[in-house]
Amino acid sequence: MSYFDSASSAPLHPVARQALQASLDEGWADPARLYREGRRAALLLESARAAAAEAVGCRADELVFTHSGTQAVHAGMSGALFARRRVGAHVVVSAVEHSSVLHAAGHAADAGGSLTEVPVGRGGAVSPGGYADALRADTALACLQSANHEVGTVQPVAEVAGACRERGVPLLVDAAQSLGWGPVDGPWSLLTASAHKWGGPAGVGLLAVRKGVRFAPQGPADERESGRVPGFVNIPAVVAAAASLRAVREEAAEEARRLGALVDLIRARVPELVPDVEVVGDPVARLPHLVTFSCLYVDGETLLHALDRAGFSVSSGSSCTSDTLTPSHVLRAMGVLSEGNVRVSLPRGTERADVERFLAVLPGAVAAVRAQLDAPASAPVRAAAPEPAAPERAPGPLPEQEEPMVVDALGRRCPIPVIELAKVFGRVPVGGTVTVLSDDAAARLDIPAWCEMRGQRYVGERPADRGVAYTVRRLS
Amino acid sequence: MSYFDSASSAPLHPVARQALQASLDEGWADPARLYREGRRAALLLESARAAAAEAVGCRADELVFTHSGTQAVHAGMSGALFARRRVGAHVVVSAVEHSSVLHAAGHAADAGGSLTEVPVGRGGAVSPGGYADALRADTALACLQSANHEVGTVQPVAEVAGACRERGVPLLVDAAQSLGWGPVDGPWSLLTASAHKWGGPAGVGLLAVRKGVRFAPQGPADERESGRVPGFVNIPAVVAAAASLRAVREEAAEEARRLGALVDLIRARVPELVPDVEVVGDPVARLPHLVTFSCLYVDGETLLHALDRAGFSVSSGSSCTSDTLTPSHVLRAMGVLSEGNVRVSLPRGTERADVERFLAVLPGAVAAVRAQLDAPASAPVRAAAPEPAAPERAPGPLPEQEEPMVVDALGRRCPIPVIELAKVFGRVPVGGTVTVLSDDAAARLDIPAWCEMRGQRYVGERPADRGVAYTVRRLS
Repeated sequence: MSYFDSASSAPLHPVARQALQASLDEGWADPARLYREGRRAALLLESARAAAAEAVGCRADELVFTHSGTQAVHAGMSGALFARRRVGAHVVVSAVEHSSVLHAAGHAADAGGSLTEVPVGRGGAVSPGGYADALRADTALACLQSANHEVGTVQPVAEVAGACRERGVPLLVDAAQSLGWGPVDGPWSLLTASAHKWGGPAGVGLLAVRKGVRFAPQGPADERESGRVPGFVNIPAVVAAAASLRAVREEAAEEARRLGALVDLIRARVPELVPDVEVVGDPVARLPHLVTFSCLYVDGETLLHALDRAGFSVSSGSSCTSDTLTPSHVLRAMGVLSEGNVRVSLPRGTERADVERFLAVLPGAVAAVRAQLDAPASAPVRAAAPEPAAPERAPGPLPEQEEPMVVDALGRRCPIPVIELAKVFGRVPVGGTVTVLSDDAAARLDIPAWCEMRGQRYVGERPADRGVAYTVRRLS
Repeated sequence: MSYFDSASSAPLHPVARQALQASLDEGWADPARLYREGRRAALLLESARAAAAEAVGCRADELVFTHSGTQAVHAGMSGALFARRRVGAHVVVSAVEHSSVLHAAGHAADAGGSLTEVPVGRGGAVSPGGYADALRADTALACLQSANHEVGTVQPVAEVAGACRERGVPLLVDAAQSLGWGPVDGPWSLLTASAHKWGGPAGVGLLAVRKGVRFAPQGPADERESGRVPGFVNIPAVVAAAASLRAVREEAAEEARRLGALVDLIRARVPELVPDVEVVGDPVARLPHLVTFSCLYVDGETLLHALDRAGFSVSSGSSCTSDTLTPSHVLRAMGVLSEGNVRVSLPRGTERADVERFLAVLPGAVAAVRAQLDAPASAPVRAAAPEPAAPERAPGPLPEQEEPMVVDALGRRCPIPVIELAKVFGRVPVGGTVTVLSDDAAARLDIPAWCEMRGQRYVGERPADRGVAYTVRRLS
């Protein structure tokens, strides 16, 4: 059994377990009370705060514990936004933030604010200049993750923090995916994280607010955690979170080297072993333990089940694995293939043998899904171009063609529209076009991605009576 | 060492510890994931939900887990209020609710709503009729605790729930103090609780919303816990909470009998052993494990420290133990003596010997504090009248007296103003008055309470140049 989804939640680190068990007897009392059990609980809490602050790189009185990373994000954003309401109510986020950030930003926008989502390149990163251009005179808050949770791409946080500081805009950094690997550089204003991502227990998040950053906690008053986080603090969990953060940091350099080599192996071998695969995310500026790839003609959910049966737990941003049947917003923002998407995030201690076994199992699992879907035979692997070919200008009316070919894939879910396209493509004359009618959200990503992988020209899309018409021109 | 403050937080129940440790290996994964670790986590979560719902007396799909009792209250109140915003924005609460309820109600009132605090009698309970009278056509939500956290008085929840149902107003019951003892009767609409109050771990609250009750979660969207509670669920803690709730329920009848007898002992013996004590809270309709009393001429904080040194951990609602230097709002609403206040709440397993040791230590501790404060000698114990004598009408100008006596206690904190009053009282002619000038919030409670205990007449209060002038007439 190999659990390869530590970016969702990491198994409990042995130090976290030990600290949790040790503090169950000392940490259950109310730390605000005057008696010995309360004083003991307060000591544990403050010593955990000091340890966590050291790892974050802030002062202890700048850091509070929340009950989840999501709560840290929500509390951090609402407190920072309200404190700057006289400046404005404009929020800047990257298009690939965690849903907790996007939902809080959407919530603020719905309440009368406005929102700019800074686009990312095909590798998943914002450009510092592009981000800085989004800052306005009425920008109350900017948010940028330290590294992306789905594709592992590291964001240029230090540069963006510098640009925000120049403009006097506080930057909140969601460091959920990276804090176990190291502190976040640059003059950030607020920082959030989540303990169960680094092997700490569930139920603990961190919110750091630098001194001098305007902050006004929202919601009903509560005296705990400097008035910033309502509710009784789970001290044993907080102690376990701080102890395990320190422990994973001590192992970080060595583990980054070791897991980084295993991820390099996956990045290199998967495209050799599996035809028609796109490895996504920045190949260099990335988290050491995370790699994501998408497989053409593959149903992500079926592949996940096949891998699960083979003993591998991974996740996917494919539309079929989401409740809303849309591809992940990260893959959409990057404009990359979304079908057959697999995210591998290696927990600490993963052995090379586990990864080799995964590489041995994957090709057969993908082939079986493709066979089940009656997918076309795969084309030989070709090197991906660094950037996709630009779509033709103004798709407008379809170009003349004796019999303009139309594939009706309405009502069919990913990856069927692309499979149907591939099946008829041999009958399209070179220079001619084929149009796929689809009402599946993944087609918007996957048809252009297919063109890119096959060296054909994606012409563009236009609304159809039902769904959307995607047109492709055959070049060869 | 005897910890007598389980109403703040109970030590971890052995079943909670066992369940927590057992589920650390199974419950760390994301229960929304498709792979085996996720499915296992989801099974644990749903089985904990079923167990907790059974104990609450609701359906499993009516119950969600929060990260604290406070979060359950905040989420329950905001969701119920928003859903009924077309009816109005009036909230009814009792005057003795937990601060989480009062703060959330105040927050709603600040945002444009209105608030009625239903007064309580000297025993700490609302009257069902008085509560029903507070319901209005625009009442969006009513809140009533099942039992009071400071004095243990049980509220008439079933009757109030019936009155609310008749008026079509949802009732939220804060069951934090009582859920371990049994389910809440009556047609309540929402119910909240907190696991660390019954010996479960910190970091777990419950929110039950009956089917058919209008509810609209507030704040940024999040798909977890039916969209009602943002953030990753702490499954090991949730499992431990549900298991320990079941365990304490199994022991509840026996433990209520046992601890109830120990509380009866304290209620009977403390007034015999310690002069000038007022035992507060309803003597019959009360939680089995909790008793509160106040000691005249005693500084609550000093007494707590003395008891702590003697090995007893208790809490206090006296002004000197609060950050705001005001007596607890519960004692104020009840109109009872607040100085030298001590709350004893016995955790499960407390032995008779522990209580006897407490009763042996208490008189000396109180006497030492009184000696240190140079308090007057105590009067013989007299039976408290069931209700305080009504103040004289319209205090207005002070009655004529050769030399109207005035005690300046400005700048002096509780219990000094009452001690100063007692010291000069022997020099007041029978029929004459003495006026105490005080800017201490506790004087408003404690001077009338002193009159009651001494059989003298409390005339009333009026604003003074500085502070408030409290006037007392000597009757004997």
